[in-house]
Amino acid sequence: MSTYEASLASAAAFMERHERFLVINHVNPDGDATGSLLGTGWLLRQLGKQAVLVNEGSTPEKFGFLPGAEQIINASRAEKPEFDAVITCDCADFARIGDVKEWLPLGMPLLNIDHHPTNDLFGTDNLVRTDAAATAEVLYDLLTYMKQPIPQEMAVCLYTGLLTDTGGFRYSNTTPHVMEMASALLACGVEPAPIAERMLETITKAHVRLLQRALQTLVLRDTDQTAYLTITAADMEQCGAQNDDTEGLVNYARNIEGVEVGILYKEVASDKVKVSLRSRSIVDVAAIAQSIGGGGHVRAAGCTVHGTLADAKQIVEQKVSAALASQEASV
Amino acid sequence: MSTYEASLASAAAFMERHERFLVINHVNPDGDATGSLLGTGWLLRQLGKQAVLVNEGSTPEKFGFLPGAEQIINASRAEKPEFDAVITCDCADFARIGDVKEWLPLGMPLLNIDHHPTNDLFGTDNLVRTDAAATAEVLYDLLTYMKQPIPQEMAVCLYTGLLTDTGGFRYSNTTPHVMEMASALLACGVEPAPIAERMLETITKAHVRLLQRALQTLVLRDTDQTAYLTITAADMEQCGAQNDDTEGLVNYARNIEGVEVGILYKEVASDKVKVSLRSRSIVDVAAIAQSIGGGGHVRAAGCTVHGTLADAKQIVEQKVSAALASQEASV
Repeated sequence: MSTYEASLASAAAFMERHERFLVINHVNPDGDATGSLLGTGWLLRQLGKQAVLVNEGSTPEKFGFLPGAEQIINASRAEKPEFDAVITCDCADFARIGDVKEWLPLGMPLLNIDHHPTNDLFGTDNLVRTDAAATAEVLYDLLTYMKQPIPQEMAVCLYTGLLTDTGGFRYSNTTPHVMEMASALLACGVEPAPIAERMLETITKAHVRLLQRALQTLVLRDTDQTAYLTITAADMEQCGAQNDDTEGLVNYARNIEGVEVGILYKEVASDKVKVSLRSRSIVDVAAIAQSIGGGGHVRAAGCTVHGTLADAKQIVEQKVSAALASQEASV
Repeated sequence: MSTYEASLASAAAFMERHERFLVINHVNPDGDATGSLLGTGWLLRQLGKQAVLVNEGSTPEKFGFLPGAEQIINASRAEKPEFDAVITCDCADFARIGDVKEWLPLGMPLLNIDHHPTNDLFGTDNLVRTDAAATAEVLYDLLTYMKQPIPQEMAVCLYTGLLTDTGGFRYSNTTPHVMEMASALLACGVEPAPIAERMLETITKAHVRLLQRALQTLVLRDTDQTAYLTITAADMEQCGAQNDDTEGLVNYARNIEGVEVGILYKEVASDKVKVSLRSRSIVDVAAIAQSIGGGGHVRAAGCTVHGTLADAKQIVEQKVSAALASQEASV
């Protein structure tokens, strides 16, 4: 039996052994956190168990269509329920459950279901596969191991987790197993189009307003290999925008044909600028971000510059130009 | 043996029987037309046959990364090659091959591989499955039937066809079989991320320029249930835009949260306006388009108004408002 198979067996036994579960996902839950939370709830009830599903705060409205979403309680507004075991979903470490941790007595049995490479195995039991694309995929492994049926409602939750954590099956974590799982879930009655539309295509009014303004600031440089957009603090305020509303804006710069590096400068205060960097296939933007005190991945990184927008542009663009030039020199 | 299985057998026999093939896809080829053309070429060569791949015109640069794309000849600039059999890919009727038809002698054996519901079975042999999401999927059926291996190069071509004709696995034609096929192709060594980026995320400079202008024209009406964008003939000219560059613009209107109907008005001439209509989940935009002499699907339709932009808006918006009002009345 492989280590992973052993952890599947132990997770199954954990669910069998206890009766009243508190199931928790991470603060500011995304599609996978919410989908895997609900999927775990469906599984526990299918096993004849009681399950209370909880998040530190409120679950974003956009997940309201997920079957069972109305049952997720907001810990900040609820009484602590009775439970004798805990399951965490999509949490890389204990702190990710946020203030719900105040509900957990010391020594409580805790099953940690996750896929993050940084997971520190904080549970008394841990079901973690770090090469899974989503926690929903780990849960699917468990369902397969336990030979449990997948009703349509559960399938919708798992599909949503898988879809969102693979960027709509576009990221490199989209493996043959991911697609096999997607196939099986569709066969359970999931309709892919409305979920994709809700999760991947719906944009907020504030996002459209920001996009209107940001596109007016588009600048191409380095012989059109670099494109950048600028959002001022005034833009954010006048558009009624939250942080989430800037999500994806940097891609408009990076996605232009011929562009290698896309940059979004977001003025947080008059002396503080958040910089998002994306590259297509050559430039290591993580190295650039790190050299300015930030971090991230080779193709997606970010940093904060303590200075004005003009300062930030000067610092970042000099480094991006140098990276492009060194590439050209090495070709 | 089912009818479809019989057509798979006959398509396999067709390929075995002949030696020198001319393989043709449709005018203005998309990802599926190009991917299935190249996939057919890879299969024929694997069977030890000769294959000349041809399009009426030039193959768009964005498909240049597909393995073998450099072998596709442009009929308008080439001498007619020698061949004794023809295969058409992704063509619903004979006219779709465009001027290449002048190369085809009467009575030439022709295998028609396609998935369009409107396919009129124009071949001497026809391999058509109208519930397939892509011609690439039909070709995959044939490969499975023939027990042919799928080298990575062929897999990249088929994956691209499947990806583009399902809108990146977002359309309702994304079936369990589509995902199974995607899984199998990924297992052949396809890297999903770079293909998705090239096919689905790259935008032209002219598209960005049009988007800049179009977003400035955004209007919400019908208590924010309708959103519309306007592109003038001058915008098109000043942005250096082709027809393709307006693709997807209407979605920015439709994708705004709470919007049911998204509309793009595109002024073609001072007395001619093309109208694109998209709805989210309630309004039948095909019915609206039909009532103005156009057509399409329930959620995506279009029509041409012979009049000014103001005329077009008046005609269309009255109908959209009425459709929304009748929905509300019926709820």
